[in-house]
Amino acid sequence: MEITRRDMFKGSAAVVVAGAISGVSQAADDPLQSWNDGAAKQAILNFVKTTTDKSSSSFVPPELRVAEFDQDGTLWVEHPVYTQVVYCLDRVGSLVKEKPDLKSREPFKAVLSGDREAIAKLSMDQLFEIVIATQSGMTVEEFREEVNKWLATAKHPRWNRLYTELVYQPMLEVLRYIRANGYKTFIATGGSAGFVREYSERVYGIPPEQVCGTEQPFQYGYGKDQRPILTKAPKFILNNMEAGKIENFYLLFGSRPYAAFGNSSSDDRQICEYTSAGDGTRLAMLVLHDDARREYAYGPAQGLPDTKVGTFSQTLYDEAKSKGWIVISMKNDWNRIFSFG
Amino acid sequence: MEITRRDMFKGSAAVVVAGAISGVSQAADDPLQSWNDGAAKQAILNFVKTTTDKSSSSFVPPELRVAEFDQDGTLWVEHPVYTQVVYCLDRVGSLVKEKPDLKSREPFKAVLSGDREAIAKLSMDQLFEIVIATQSGMTVEEFREEVNKWLATAKHPRWNRLYTELVYQPMLEVLRYIRANGYKTFIATGGSAGFVREYSERVYGIPPEQVCGTEQPFQYGYGKDQRPILTKAPKFILNNMEAGKIENFYLLFGSRPYAAFGNSSSDDRQICEYTSAGDGTRLAMLVLHDDARREYAYGPAQGLPDTKVGTFSQTLYDEAKSKGWIVISMKNDWNRIFSFG
Repeated sequence: MEITRRDMFKGSAAVVVAGAISGVSQAADDPLQSWNDGAAKQAILNFVKTTTDKSSSSFVPPELRVAEFDQDGTLWVEHPVYTQVVYCLDRVGSLVKEKPDLKSREPFKAVLSGDREAIAKLSMDQLFEIVIATQSGMTVEEFREEVNKWLATAKHPRWNRLYTELVYQPMLEVLRYIRANGYKTFIATGGSAGFVREYSERVYGIPPEQVCGTEQPFQYGYGKDQRPILTKAPKFILNNMEAGKIENFYLLFGSRPYAAFGNSSSDDRQICEYTSAGDGTRLAMLVLHDDARREYAYGPAQGLPDTKVGTFSQTLYDEAKSKGWIVISMKNDWNRIFSFG
Repeated sequence: MEITRRDMFKGSAAVVVAGAISGVSQAADDPLQSWNDGAAKQAILNFVKTTTDKSSSSFVPPELRVAEFDQDGTLWVEHPVYTQVVYCLDRVGSLVKEKPDLKSREPFKAVLSGDREAIAKLSMDQLFEIVIATQSGMTVEEFREEVNKWLATAKHPRWNRLYTELVYQPMLEVLRYIRANGYKTFIATGGSAGFVREYSERVYGIPPEQVCGTEQPFQYGYGKDQRPILTKAPKFILNNMEAGKIENFYLLFGSRPYAAFGNSSSDDRQICEYTSAGDGTRLAMLVLHDDARREYAYGPAQGLPDTKVGTFSQTLYDEAKSKGWIVISMKNDWNRIFSFG
């Protein structure tokens, strides 16, 4: 039997469902109960209404209804470190057991030291080196098993909860609402699709084939028992950052989205631009992390120092404002962040 | 408005539906009316029954029900030349208008000569050169418009029908039957997904995001009016031949199929092997073209000379027999080939 992605986490699936039915001071039939009234909520409602109304000049036929969602910082927490990077950092210990010479080599040395400041200073290239080193050589089944084991136990240091619980309730409502109106939902992540696919269906309702990411290719071969195997090769074949995100989106899914949701200058600018440049009514939205109390605040739009992950630059903020891309303020637009508490 | 793939061919969609309801001497409730009783038909019925029966030890949960289909020679006619290659050959005329120096260069010279024998002798590398030359540089919208124009008019020389009518009625029945039992259907083609996607949903019921192929990457940029555009780059990024087909299948869709249908030694061997090597009940089937009267006969299994396209080698035939992959004889297993006539 293939590894079933649904079996693993019956508990957290229940959390999501519970989140859907526990409204906070909003009308019971409001599909976006966790959203405060305002421009962002209205933009989503208007977009769906206009594009699904047959009498509207912006009507979109069902087979073209495609909506794209970034994951880190858009659907779930990305701070203080991208979740998949945390996973890879956690794997470094097992890796050096197999390859002891890595112990004394950067960036592995820094990771093993446990020195948070040193780890925080690793460059993007060093992080990619760690991703490649910890995600290559094993069969796809071994990789999936490792990921599932980790997802079932690893917890975010701030909330002491599984990472898959740290998904934004307002965005789950958008996913459900937009799907209920005939849109197919896709995840385009800067991380590996293979990682996200292990929980995308049970957490977001998005099946594995509707997830794309920055990919290492598979290599076909034969195991010790001569059974055919697929192993992850130590290189990248698809870069899903910057313009790569929309290039690969069209490559894999064959269409320009009508709606795009993101939060990062390095990841989501071009896909918002390309989405918005299509004719008819389009929706481009960017989540601004401006809520240090309930989640995090980062990005220069808040006068806060820039950070390595999830950067929402002032340039992107200004571009969004000038082009009609909607900025979602977590602080003002969301009356709850998570399905719990 | 994005180019709607459904609008183009209302006529041929009607043909497909008609095919579905006109049974030939079979029980009206038979989901595989165009199949004669025999091992091939029984294998499909058994596979679906066993894997969807909750009390069976081979029960497959709905989210894992994935079936893969090759296209050329498996879902539609591939002789005498792969349809997408015919399209590219037809584009060479327009291409040399833009780039006259190609006129005197092979393989373009041979194509322009119209000499069928010379064209038939082009190597696979030369065909790929033509594919790259005729499918690069334009925006994705221009490409799609060209493809749709061609599909709406170009006809197969033998039947004088649109290529999209030359789909195998028995395979349409398998697609419908297997989907009705909860399987998602995917196309994995040696051609370009971008070509197949223009008709996959209306002809096969397979949405664009469930098609993968041998891919040229897109390049993000800006057109004359500063609108963002995606153009096809003159190189390949995914090779969907041989082992590449299963490597890319897992890369893009994230799972090992439970059923695989193909017909070619160069294209379908590894994906059949990998599919069959999974635990539980699996189905690997290969279409043997042994019906010169109603379609074509080729491949050494019939004692006929090998051909350039769609080769089903004796080696593959022997491997299939020894491993329990089912060989479908078009002549004996199918009581009709197309939905028409």
